[in-house]
Amino acid sequence: MLATLRRVFELHGFGEIETRAVEPLERLGGASEASKEVYVLTRRGGETADAEFGLHFDLTVPFARYVEERQGKLTFPFRRYQIQKVWRGERPQEGRFREFYQADIDVVARDVLPAHLEAEVAVVMARALEALPVPAATMRMNDRKLVEGFYRGVGIADVAGALRSVDKLGKIGPEGVAKELAAQGVGEQAADAILELAKIQSADGSFKEAVIDLWETTPTVEDEDAQRLLGEGIASLVALVESVNAAVPGTAMADLSIARGLDYYTGAVYETTLEGHEDLGSICSGGRYDSLVAGGGFPGVGMSIGVSRLVSRLVSQEIVTATRSVPSAVLVAVIDEDTRAASDGIATRLRARGIPCEVAPAASKFGKQIQYADRRGIPFVWFPAAEGDGEVKDIRSGEQVPADADGWNPPVDDLTVRIERR
Amino acid sequence: MLATLRRVFELHGFGEIETRAVEPLERLGGASEASKEVYVLTRRGGETADAEFGLHFDLTVPFARYVEERQGKLTFPFRRYQIQKVWRGERPQEGRFREFYQADIDVVARDVLPAHLEAEVAVVMARALEALPVPAATMRMNDRKLVEGFYRGVGIADVAGALRSVDKLGKIGPEGVAKELAAQGVGEQAADAILELAKIQSADGSFKEAVIDLWETTPTVEDEDAQRLLGEGIASLVALVESVNAAVPGTAMADLSIARGLDYYTGAVYETTLEGHEDLGSICSGGRYDSLVAGGGFPGVGMSIGVSRLVSRLVSQEIVTATRSVPSAVLVAVIDEDTRAASDGIATRLRARGIPCEVAPAASKFGKQIQYADRRGIPFVWFPAAEGDGEVKDIRSGEQVPADADGWNPPVDDLTVRIERR
Repeated sequence: MLATLRRVFELHGFGEIETRAVEPLERLGGASEASKEVYVLTRRGGETADAEFGLHFDLTVPFARYVEERQGKLTFPFRRYQIQKVWRGERPQEGRFREFYQADIDVVARDVLPAHLEAEVAVVMARALEALPVPAATMRMNDRKLVEGFYRGVGIADVAGALRSVDKLGKIGPEGVAKELAAQGVGEQAADAILELAKIQSADGSFKEAVIDLWETTPTVEDEDAQRLLGEGIASLVALVESVNAAVPGTAMADLSIARGLDYYTGAVYETTLEGHEDLGSICSGGRYDSLVAGGGFPGVGMSIGVSRLVSRLVSQEIVTATRSVPSAVLVAVIDEDTRAASDGIATRLRARGIPCEVAPAASKFGKQIQYADRRGIPFVWFPAAEGDGEVKDIRSGEQVPADADGWNPPVDDLTVRIERR
Repeated sequence: MLATLRRVFELHGFGEIETRAVEPLERLGGASEASKEVYVLTRRGGETADAEFGLHFDLTVPFARYVEERQGKLTFPFRRYQIQKVWRGERPQEGRFREFYQADIDVVARDVLPAHLEAEVAVVMARALEALPVPAATMRMNDRKLVEGFYRGVGIADVAGALRSVDKLGKIGPEGVAKELAAQGVGEQAADAILELAKIQSADGSFKEAVIDLWETTPTVEDEDAQRLLGEGIASLVALVESVNAAVPGTAMADLSIARGLDYYTGAVYETTLEGHEDLGSICSGGRYDSLVAGGGFPGVGMSIGVSRLVSRLVSQEIVTATRSVPSAVLVAVIDEDTRAASDGIATRLRARGIPCEVAPAASKFGKQIQYADRRGIPFVWFPAAEGDGEVKDIRSGEQVPADADGWNPPVDDLTVRIERR
């Protein structure tokens, strides 16, 4: 699955980078939950007081350092992908791990980030998910400008605080969110309005009318900026949903409940669920940000797949299966130890043409050698002969044919191990 | 380079496994230097006393746990490769890192490990090194049975201690080793004999005569086991060097100075140097062991490439270079923002045939779009047209031809980024 992600990302011009697993502790700060769960490193026998480094808890912190340190050398917009493990000191439970893989893509500009890149990252991720053996994905999208304009327009001062509450909608329901908003001093009418806003969804640009209707029937404060932000956000989200669906039909949906807890998003925000696995939560999320590095500049947009969470579900619910347990497509049998070199020679010629194979470990009876292949799911056994290259047997069908090690090929589906949906 | 290693290992029937980066601290013990350099994990704000886990310092410890835990499920002999980072709290210096990649292959049996597997792992590694853009490799091999038989025969009681001294031959020279041996109570004649043994080398089985000559001119003690071990070791090493050279000519050399400090090797031991880079030390080492897991059983043979050390040398001495800085073979130009969808469509059709490409981020002047490609080393720029698919320009030669996005292909060498020797 990682190889599939790499292939799709690279087809779209994203280059792989890899960063060290550790960062200076002061970089692993911030307000997020993850930053409280950092694992700190000490040398065996050393004191905690010496600790200066911790394991990274996401791939954004190291990417920010990467761009900051290489800003004079990189060419922008810079497309990168990064597939690495991250570590969080959480309580382990189903779908939550202390060590897990993330697969991130980001496009970062130096000064101005063109709007069409918001659609591009979503399209790349949609195609990556299409290429994986997973159920159909729905990408739910919102726009922070739209939300901020609306929230400010209905008189909410602490937009970030209100967003963090709305982000819990799935967990605590509308009553829970309303209670939290009231505690933040948000008036009842405003709270009702933003909960109404969160109900709006559409698979195309038609959400626009519903937002405008709601806006026009809700008492608003005098705030030109809010009005402008709302208008810009609506236009961005319409363009985003429509471009993504034009490229990958049936993928994108405007969903105005999508909040994403993190403060740094400033435009598109994304969450992705798999059909029949909505309980798993979002398996691919992200958004647009104004500034990747602390000093400002470097606006970008990125998304991240929670690979381990996804794979864990696929395996635990037996949604996928591997076609065999080893890479070998062929077991080359050995007649006796004196002719092992001949079997090795056949294997070398098959490998030269890209056919993975192994040579039997012992010159046991052919029945035992076939059993060796069968236990590993190796589909073909090659029997060398004193003259010519011998014969190859498909041990599933029993069919056995004379073959030439420089010409014979297994069916394409048997060449390499594949991960298939059951 | 990692992709090349994966490809070669899989062609030889080795399946990839990956283990978590952490192990219980009690597993990360032992007498080796690396086990003193373990990084211990604590939660931020936690106490060192809570620490139970550390980062693995090699891939053998986690592989042993893997086999131990899954012994009922695995099929033996079990071929695995593992390419992961490991961590050691060393003082960083050229070629020594605190976080680095290793690439290991091992074949592990349940009870008896056939001798030909000692040649197989060496052949796989030799082919992997041949496939990488590195100078020619020489694999130096010795056999622990040969060494133990000889050492015991000349009257050395602490064979492991003597071996650890001989392992320092390159660093402290024969005088230094002789001094250490004297301190261990090894007599002068015996010390001379094992230093003479360490001088014996041959690119074929001819070392055998030199060993027997030395043995016959050296006073030996009465020890039938020693004599038997020596005989078995000589036969094993002759077979090993000859089989490896038959498969990959010019690779293997019997070198009786190869000691490998680690106690657990019991048969073949290997070290590998690159021509012109002998100062780098061994970049691929390993050996045969009787028991992978603490309880006994599971004999195996394995080798490990120090990938980061190798890549660091290749990069720092500019031995290799990448053909471009991004995966894209083609930049699809954009005439104006209104026709961006047409450019996207051409890119999609190229990608469907496996051609990596990206679409220009802005509809700037064509000269600027060509400059965008040139800065990244993207060899081709595609100019869409109002009718048909337009034309594609090789920006290195300036040649521009009409092209069909469903049929045009770049030259094979331009399709993907390649790492080349300069």
